[in-house]
Parts: sequence; structure tokens; C-alpha cells
Amino acid sequence: MKSVADLYAVIMAGGGGTRFWPLSRKRWPKQFLPIATGKTMIEETYRRIRPLVPNRRVFTIANAAQSRTIRRLLPALPSANALVEPRARNTAASLILATAHVYRRNPEAVVAVLASDHLIVDEPLFLKKLAAAAEAAARTESLVTFGIQPTFPATGYGYIQFAKEGGRKVAGEPFHSVRAFREKPSREAAVAFLKSGDYVWNSGMFLWRASVFGRAMDRYSPEFFPFWRRTLDALEKKSKTALSKIFEEIPALSIDYALMEKAEGTLVCAGDFGWSDVGAWSALGDLWPRDDQDNARRGQVVAVETRGNIVCNPGKLTALIGVENLVIVQTKDVLLVCRKERDQDVKKILDLLEKSGKTEYL
Amino acid sequence: MKSVADLYAVIMAGGGGTRFWPLSRKRWPKQFLPIATGKTMIEETYRRIRPLVPNRRVFTIANAAQSRTIRRLLPALPSANALVEPRARNTAASLILATAHVYRRNPEAVVAVLASDHLIVDEPLFLKKLAAAAEAAARTESLVTFGIQPTFPATGYGYIQFAKEGGRKVAGEPFHSVRAFREKPSREAAVAFLKSGDYVWNSGMFLWRASVFGRAMDRYSPEFFPFWRRTLDALEKKSKTALSKIFEEIPALSIDYALMEKAEGTLVCAGDFGWSDVGAWSALGDLWPRDDQDNARRGQVVAVETRGNIVCNPGKLTALIGVENLVIVQTKDVLLVCRKERDQDVKKILDLLEKSGKTEYL
Repeated sequence: MKSVADLYAVIMAGGGGTRFWPLSRKRWPKQFLPIATGKTMIEETYRRIRPLVPNRRVFTIANAAQSRTIRRLLPALPSANALVEPRARNTAASLILATAHVYRRNPEAVVAVLASDHLIVDEPLFLKKLAAAAEAAARTESLVTFGIQPTFPATGYGYIQFAKEGGRKVAGEPFHSVRAFREKPSREAAVAFLKSGDYVWNSGMFLWRASVFGRAMDRYSPEFFPFWRRTLDALEKKSKTALSKIFEEIPALSIDYALMEKAEGTLVCAGDFGWSDVGAWSALGDLWPRDDQDNARRGQVVAVETRGNIVCNPGKLTALIGVENLVIVQTKDVLLVCRKERDQDVKKILDLLEKSGKTEYL
Repeated sequence: MKSVADLYAVIMAGGGGTRFWPLSRKRWPKQFLPIATGKTMIEETYRRIRPLVPNRRVFTIANAAQSRTIRRLLPALPSANALVEPRARNTAASLILATAHVYRRNPEAVVAVLASDHLIVDEPLFLKKLAAAAEAAARTESLVTFGIQPTFPATGYGYIQFAKEGGRKVAGEPFHSVRAFREKPSREAAVAFLKSGDYVWNSGMFLWRASVFGRAMDRYSPEFFPFWRRTLDALEKKSKTALSKIFEEIPALSIDYALMEKAEGTLVCAGDFGWSDVGAWSALGDLWPRDDQDNARRGQVVAVETRGNIVCNPGKLTALIGVENLVIVQTKDVLLVCRKERDQDVKKILDLLEKSGKTEYL
């Protein structure tokens, strides 16, 4: 595959999610774990885009400790490309910093913002669409995003409403105008979105030319635009102090809220390449190898009259009798047994542990 | 408590049950595990009877490997009292051998046969009843047994039918005549037994004078009586070879079948001292400390909306979310997760492991 001229990838790796506890821990979040495959999710993300983007044009962005992990996991990545946030201030701050780095190399370069912990099944299609989206970002004044066709009325994702009519093709792929970004909806709203047919899930993947990003900030995000200017200035002066000060003062808001919801002319492309944010344990039921009783598993399982369990217990034998739809996860110091449909409640366990001072398990 | 003159205890420790797998293993059966309390069940059995029976009058009977374990667990037991069966031949053979040992010390001594892996809650009452039963065995020509008041129509126990009328008191405790021993019944029969009010569970605890045992063998068990004679003879001659030969030839039958079902004049005493054979994992729900969600547990448990689970995972944290009535057992190499009402199906797992050659887990 031909690499796209001056396409940069920015891999967002600062997340500290807890939904894969006890495998994921405060200092060992999902992107650094081999959740979906045998390799860590950030390694997979990196490997996946390499046909389109050479090493020197890949950036990661995370805190200092995470960036040390990234350098270890991605030894081919130029060390300076593992950008360090002075402190965690949500995605608007991260992407201002990362885009400013690209801008200084080439203001007309295209930035592809990617999550470090998502799964993509059809990689050739993903690369084709990514190249088309980069083309669209290069040729227009638009911000570009990928929308995922919803398969159920999810309340855990943001949505993008698009104009069904008047789409345009770029590099053979159709793009539509965005009408509105919607935050995570209520159940009722989600059902209505699904019915309407003109809503897609916000994948959190964005593309923009660095110069377009700056102009969009200027036009649509007066609160953040000064930070964009100051960041370019701090990089110019190589001033760590100035950068730290910016990260102290910048509002901790998402890029969706700071820019995408306000910008006009944004284009959306269908992300129909088998996307999953692998949001919690139950998502692995579809990803891991399954036995004849529909148990997805890592490690040896012997089962009698069971169905639909997810077992992560490498190195030990797991024996199951008469149980259904459980998530069973073993780590060095913790065993989790959870009903599959309750996997979001892992957070409640963490709250209990926090309250009782058992922070060694967080 | 005054010890009863010439009362011997025979602790049957040859069992190789699998129902507490994966904690119990072929070479590490339940009696050698701290199932109900923090001490092994055989240690508890031994400790429990010591107020009535001095060390030198306690015998254990098991195979050679088990007897080595017993000597380690019960260092105060005279080494020669850990009787070794040349091979496992069921309880008739074991009890002929053990009773013959007692007979040679004193034919008029009373033998109390006890399981090494049962639980007794009210120990003072147990000792009082045991003393009375020993008294009854000493003063009569009867075999004596304990019957347990059934609390549900169990199909896993044998039953004893007794004569409601015409009981007699010995040492203040009532004894009734046994009408019949019944093997493990069908569900329907068990329901009828429970309704009738004159059936109790066969506890497997028996008392007899050694000489009475011999005479009962002679009278009711012509098949086994020659082995009784030959065993006495082999012990007299200290002939290991003769003993081995006996254990090759003796039918592998239970004492219930070989003697108790046939003997007349047997007396039964109510074993209302809180007896449990702790037959499988689910029995521990009543024995172990429980949290406010009715989870019985060993090890640290943190739980969100759970109920009635049994967790054996010392040394690790167990986190439970939304699960009910599970048995969760962790050992060094195996994790078991089983519905509580299916705990008898552990056997099916063992069959699968056996078939697939994974014998290291048995």
C-alpha cells in the first residue's frame, strides 16, 4: 500500500480506564494489555497503521510513566515521538499539543487521531478508508471523522448526526456532512437515533490538516485558541516551563466538546471496518476463541453443561459446572467472578476497595 | 469428663472421596484437609473424642500412604495404633482388622467406630451420647449405632428403621431397637421414610464389644466370620503374609452390608448433636463465616449484589459482582466455578480429566 504523503498518526494513549480490572490497573491500563489478541492493544494500533504511516510520522501522547511504557512496547518509534503531557487534561489539551508538533513539521500535513485501545477487524478496509479520509482532510477545509453504524441503542457512546443527502466521494469513499455531535444519550434518545438512520456512533477517530485545526480553533473555539497559539510558541522556544503552565491553565475538556461539536463543515465517513472499542469484559465473548459450549477463554477450561462464559485464567486449569454468562478473570492477586451483563459494575468494586483502603488492588 | 472403662475408638481414615476437588485430590482426601474448621477433619475427630478415650486406645485405619499422613497429623497417637490395611477392601475388612486388634487387648472392650471426616457441632452432647452408647454396648449383646434425624428426603444416605415403642434408657439416654437397615433410597422412598417418622439416617458410627462383634459375625455373617477368625490368628502369629492374603480374599463389602443389615437386636441412639458428613462444597455454606450478603468464605471477598456464594480462595482477593449460589474454589493449579446445586457433578469434571489424560489434576 502506498503511504499517504505527509499523513501523521497521533495515537492517544493517556487513558486510565478501569473496565478491565483486575487485569488492568491504575498503572497498567487497557492499551498496554494484550486484551483482544496476544499483543498489547497499542502495539496492534501501531502495527495496523504502519502500511500508511512511516515510523517518524507516528506520535503517541500520554503521561510520563505511560510514555516510558510506550517506548518499551514500541522500540521502533523515535523516542521523541512519544509525546509527554505535563499533566492529564483530557483530549482537547492532548490534541492541541500533538497537532502543534505536526504543525511545526508541516502545517499542511494531515493528522489522523487514533485511540490506542480500539480493535479493528478488517484492516485492509480500514487502511483504504483512512487513506480516503486523509485525502479528504488534505483537499478540504473540513475536519473529518469516522462514524460507526450503530447495532444497538448504546448509551455509552456519543453519536454523530449526518446529512443523508448530498454526500461526496473522495478516493472512491463516500463522505457526508455532519449535522451535529450528540453526547451520550438517554436510552430513549438512543432508540430514536437508531430508528432514524442518520445517526452513527462517534468513534473518536478524527483527521485534520494541522493548519485547518488551527483555523477551526480560531473560528469555533475561542476559549481554546489562545492555548493553541501558546503551545506553538512554547514548542518554538522549547520551553518546558511554558508548556507546563499551559497544561495547568487549559480547561480539562474533550476535543468533542472543545471543537468538534462547534465546528461547521465536518465530514463523516462510515467506519464499517469492524470497529470495537472493546469497552468491557463482555466484549471479549466475540473476540476470543470459543469452545463447543460457547465459552470464550484464555487458558485451559474443562466444562460441564455451561454456556457463554468468558474465562481469562492462563496458566491454570479452570473447571466450570452448570454456570452461564459469567466473566471469570484471574490475576496474580485477584479473582473476579461477575455476571456478564454486570461487567460495568467493576467500578463499584473499585470504589469499595478505595473506600476500605485496599489501594494495592487498584 | 470421666473416660469410659476400656472404650476404644477406631477412626476410619481410608476414604478417597473426590467431592471436595480441587482441594481434595486422590492422594489428599477430605479427612486430611481443614474443610470445616482451620484444622484437618481427622485432627478434629481425634481431638473430639480424647476426653473419653486416651491416646493408647485410639486406632486409625487406612492404607500405608494415608497412615503416614495420619502419623504426621496426630503425633501423639502411638505409632502402632495407625493400623495399615494391606489393600483397600471396603469397611467390613477394615473393621474386622481393627476390632481384632482391640479383641486381642481385651475381648470385652467396646469399640466406637467413627468416620474421620464428619463434623459434630455439639461436642459435649456427643460425648455424653457416646458414653451412653458405649455403656449400652458394654452391658448388652447388641451392636449399637447412631441415627440422625432426617431434615430432608436425602437420597445420598442409608436409613435405619427403628421401633418407636419399647425403647430403653441407658445412662439417661434412650435407645430403640433397629427394625431394618435400608440402603440409599429412591427419591419417593426417601419422602415416605421422612413422613413415617420412624426412619433415621445411618450415620456410619457404630459401637460394639469386640466379643459381641465376633459372635455377631459368627451368627449373622457366615461369609465374613472365617476372615474374622483368620485375622485374629494372623495377628496372634504377627504374620503380615497371612494378613495380606486375607485382604486379597475378603469380599470388598461395607460393614452395613456384611453385618449390620443382617444382625438382630441392634440398638439405635439419636445422634442429635449436630452431625454433618460435610458431603460436598455446598455443605460449607452453613459452616463457614458469612458476610452480609450470605456469602460463606475463606479469604478476602469484596462483593456487589451477590448472595449465597461459597468462596474458598485464601491468599487472594475475590471480587464478586451480581452472582448467586456459586461455589468458587481456588487451589495452586485449579480454579473451580460451579453452581451450588450442581456440586455433585465435580465427578463429571474428574471423568473428563481422566479421559483426556490430564491426570495431574486428579
